[in-house]
Amino acid sequence: MIDLDILERNIERMAAAVRDKGLTLRPHAKTHKIIEIAARQMAAGAAGLTVATIGEAEVFAEAGIEDIFIAYPLWISTQKAERLRRLASTARISVGVDSAAGATRLGSGLGQASGRVSVLVEIDSGHHRSGTMPEAAAAVAEAASRAGLQVAGVFTFPGHSYAPGMPAEAAAQEQQALFLAAESLAAAGFEATCRSGGSTPTALLTEGSVATEVRPGVYVFGDAQQLELGRCAVEDIALTVAATVVSHHETSPDAPARFIIDAGSKILGSDRPAWATGFGRLMDHPDARITALSERHATVEWSESTVKPALGDGVRVIPNHVCLAINLADDVAVTSRGTLVDRWDVVARGRNK
Amino acid sequence: MIDLDILERNIERMAAAVRDKGLTLRPHAKTHKIIEIAARQMAAGAAGLTVATIGEAEVFAEAGIEDIFIAYPLWISTQKAERLRRLASTARISVGVDSAAGATRLGSGLGQASGRVSVLVEIDSGHHRSGTMPEAAAAVAEAASRAGLQVAGVFTFPGHSYAPGMPAEAAAQEQQALFLAAESLAAAGFEATCRSGGSTPTALLTEGSVATEVRPGVYVFGDAQQLELGRCAVEDIALTVAATVVSHHETSPDAPARFIIDAGSKILGSDRPAWATGFGRLMDHPDARITALSERHATVEWSESTVKPALGDGVRVIPNHVCLAINLADDVAVTSRGTLVDRWDVVARGRNK
Repeated sequence: MIDLDILERNIERMAAAVRDKGLTLRPHAKTHKIIEIAARQMAAGAAGLTVATIGEAEVFAEAGIEDIFIAYPLWISTQKAERLRRLASTARISVGVDSAAGATRLGSGLGQASGRVSVLVEIDSGHHRSGTMPEAAAAVAEAASRAGLQVAGVFTFPGHSYAPGMPAEAAAQEQQALFLAAESLAAAGFEATCRSGGSTPTALLTEGSVATEVRPGVYVFGDAQQLELGRCAVEDIALTVAATVVSHHETSPDAPARFIIDAGSKILGSDRPAWATGFGRLMDHPDARITALSERHATVEWSESTVKPALGDGVRVIPNHVCLAINLADDVAVTSRGTLVDRWDVVARGRNK
Repeated sequence: MIDLDILERNIERMAAAVRDKGLTLRPHAKTHKIIEIAARQMAAGAAGLTVATIGEAEVFAEAGIEDIFIAYPLWISTQKAERLRRLASTARISVGVDSAAGATRLGSGLGQASGRVSVLVEIDSGHHRSGTMPEAAAAVAEAASRAGLQVAGVFTFPGHSYAPGMPAEAAAQEQQALFLAAESLAAAGFEATCRSGGSTPTALLTEGSVATEVRPGVYVFGDAQQLELGRCAVEDIALTVAATVVSHHETSPDAPARFIIDAGSKILGSDRPAWATGFGRLMDHPDARITALSERHATVEWSESTVKPALGDGVRVIPNHVCLAINLADDVAVTSRGTLVDRWDVVARGRNK
């Protein structure tokens, strides 16, 4: 279930905050996978969208989005090259690259169309996932250029910001990495016109001095991770999973008192960072904790003093990581002031390739 | 990707082992959600299927499966009651109940159709999820009977068997719980004709003396959890996720050497029990470990001495928990001796309700 009023407020607020800093906003659509939300992001002033796969890009290009960045170091097959060529014929497409080999393969796969696709060199700003070291960005840019691709700049994902106390440090590392990478490119004769960073935890901390663009995703919905990191409030949570208390157990010699609700890892996702207090939170029961999760059950424990729901009561669950939850639903109910106002298809769900 | 030959061997082997013990086999279809696999299980001698939701039951009933157990303590709405009535008009349907209130609601929701739906009382055999205490099973059965439902017996899920060293102990607790619950029913005048237990880790340990039926699911595919628990061998793994090495990094002052592959939590699922060595395994690289997982990336570390794949190489990933992985794919490639022989739709994927 999506609360439309909260969703729209989240979209407006991020757009305004990014605009105030003089940055370009390119939201990551992996979080929602929904055309109606992408349209609202664009209307609020986004320059384009970020996606993670060619399949997601195809969905949003077909829906009329004209500027799409595939923020992923694609390794291009013949089939993928053909799909990218088709995409580039209808939209402005940019793609991540993090190795000279990947850039060369991308350019030769695209052939004549390589001039219509621009690339951003992915750099590692401390998350230690994909991305080249900032000082080595030029080598990737040179390979891309030799392969006929336009080098538009550099990008990074400070994923290590998703931990308590980390956003400020991660944001600083992100700026430093973007700076070094832009320097590396400049020394090789490339201008890093686009310097793209920014996850939801760091987007509002990002200083405009180095980054030119941010790509937050989760801000549209919020989730239990962001809540527990203090990056959003309960009032900012726009997506919850409707569940029912199906089983209820008093304390026994073997087990604590518990409620079982009919939402599990097949609708919530099962991400659970070490610092999280459980596998998600309950919207109207701040003291409750989801202590165990299986495919169709969540085990919920309450503090002794709390007013507990009864067997059969409905509860609203806040997923730990909303990007996984939305990917488990074919459609979502859209509500406004407690009333169902629409249903939206999660059209880019499962676009894994 | 499903290896058809391994899949069929797994199906035959479990069917034979269960038959040898004189038990009834009712595989849990939540693991595969695929009609072609259900058909093979039925052909190998399964008495019917187990599912977790009404939506899954609808898919398999429509495909012609005539005996379906919804192993879940459903809390019935008007709409769900209507769907159950429709199901019961074309198939033999049984449903889990674990509270007198839930049983009463189920019976009154079904109304005239309540006589066509049988129930099994769910009992807790040590997993401490849903399920009443075995000694209290009679109270639930009595409520079900008063509500017009047929009481067919008792069932349990020994989910605590999914941990190292636990299967034997969990299987013993399971038998004891089924015994006590059957006694409880007998004292109230009900015969627990069906005494159903058995997850994949315990199915072959289950003694026929108490249980009459087992409901294993994961055995059709195997997964990294079962592999690391020693409940299946690498040769038994029938489902893998095809991925490509997209990024490659040597050891740096800040980070260990790593490869990044383009399969993440949106295709593998992110279950990771504390005892697991990572977020999944690589089929052809037993020394490799998936040390981090994000939505579209897995970070893989190798031991120093291992032959490592190159950038662009394909790898086959064994998901930690295959029931989550299949639920993230719309269809699967079916191979036999390395050749693509079919594509199957995951028709019951996302049937969350």
